Amino acid sequence: MKIAVVAPSCPLKREAAEAVEAIVAERGDCELAIHPQCFLIDGHFAGPDEARLAALREVMADPSIGAVWFARGGYGSNRIADAALADLPAAARGKLYMGYSDAGFLLAGLHKAGIDAAWGPMPQDVLRDGGDTAVHRALNWLVLRDATALEPHIQRPAMAFNLTVLSNLLGTALEPDFSGVDLLVEEVSEHLYRIDRTMFHLTASPNIRRAARLRLGRVADVLPNDVEFGTDEQAIVADWCARSGIAFGGRADIGHDAHNRVVPFTSE
Amino acid sequence: MKIAVVAPSCPLKREAAEAVEAIVAERGDCELAIHPQCFLIDGHFAGPDEARLAALREVMADPSIGAVWFARGGYGSNRIADAALADLPAAARGKLYMGYSDAGFLLAGLHKAGIDAAWGPMPQDVLRDGGDTAVHRALNWLVLRDATALEPHIQRPAMAFNLTVLSNLLGTALEPDFSGVDLLVEEVSEHLYRIDRTMFHLTASPNIRRAARLRLGRVADVLPNDVEFGTDEQAIVADWCARSGIAFGGRADIGHDAHNRVVPFTSE
Repeated sequence: MKIAVVAPSCPLKREAAEAVEAIVAERGDCELAIHPQCFLIDGHFAGPDEARLAALREVMADPSIGAVWFARGGYGSNRIADAALADLPAAARGKLYMGYSDAGFLLAGLHKAGIDAAWGPMPQDVLRDGGDTAVHRALNWLVLRDATALEPHIQRPAMAFNLTVLSNLLGTALEPDFSGVDLLVEEVSEHLYRIDRTMFHLTASPNIRRAARLRLGRVADVLPNDVEFGTDEQAIVADWCARSGIAFGGRADIGHDAHNRVVPFTSE
Repeated sequence: MKIAVVAPSCPLKREAAEAVEAIVAERGDCELAIHPQCFLIDGHFAGPDEARLAALREVMADPSIGAVWFARGGYGSNRIADAALADLPAAARGKLYMGYSDAGFLLAGLHKAGIDAAWGPMPQDVLRDGGDTAVHRALNWLVLRDATALEPHIQRPAMAFNLTVLSNLLGTALEPDFSGVDLLVEEVSEHLYRIDRTMFHLTASPNIRRAARLRLGRVADVLPNDVEFGTDEQAIVADWCARSGIAFGGRADIGHDAHNRVVPFTSE
């Protein structure tokens, strides 16, 4: 299988690219094509919108590519998502797309367009503690569909999102149908009051209320409040689920870390 | 006129209350009733949801109160807004409600319910540099309907919101009709990439796209990115307006500061 790496958000670090190439060479079960766009820098982004879009459209249209692996998160895939999903070439449909965090904008839109999308570790994760394991887990799913890569308690259909990304895609053209979905969320570098506010927004959505249940992944690097908020992330999420009639399914094994598991958006 | 002060979000500082009481005593044109709930502390909030809701409902139902003035922002009015607006007593309708920032959740819901709401300075603002002027400006509108308090270029109907608050009330029961509205937004303590992401969310809304125009107030205390974002707040807002077909009306004289002007949500 040939796996293309593109960066619809922020640039990939060279040392991450090299480390992942070394892992792939050692495995010998797939081929990696890291698009040069991954290393472009334009302010916050991995090149201007046009360059990020062109690279993504190029690998989507390439029938020799079996999977598109988003290089990393950050911010910016939403800026090109609508254009990336317009007038889809036939070759775009026959592949799996994987990433998480900001890439959730694309995963949502791809899934809505009937294309295989999965939440899972990304190339830049190789730089985390235990990052080799995360990269192997992603490749085990991309190449082998190895079920040990999966979040262990998902009831498919399932989806996973960063909480803030999910909140920001509600009401946009990217919003998928959450009916009956095992919906996993995680968060990083937010204040608890923001998580509370985002849960207010999220759980007001009739579409979100149609989810089978909501489960909470890891909430990392919570930013300190000037006053203690007075409760914790699990109580916040459980409270908004109770207020809105959504079943709270407890914790989930996803997050901005090397232990992040794979959540395929497909039903089987 | 008797003006009630309640705190649906975070606690009011004692020294702010005293300074505003001194200003009101000196003016002699109104009476201030600072509800004791303003000084409650429950973690992040000015008392638990039940106490904040009860104080708000109490002053809403009191026919002797001519205006309800929200003590300050922070976070939390969204947690009680639905309950505050349910089964409204007749006396709730004959008064003006003023505040900004987090109070925008209530202003939106009140306006949607056909009640007079206005964006404007709050009691806690007296502690800012030039805060006396801000408090006089608010009182000049509350008591005298003095047009010099108004944002100078509003074309009514107008509304004003903190950008993040506005994004978080879209799709909730609080979302008002923006058709033909001069919509003013401002922001404080956010990264530019977040402002860009919030504008993506906001401008995807068909309701927001029905606004007459979008105008940008001050964007204060922008948090530094690890990499420079590459553009500024005005270019970001103008760009998303252009992408979504909303008229960008330039800058507006509102913000988290003592110069913050009044924006009545009523049509005249």
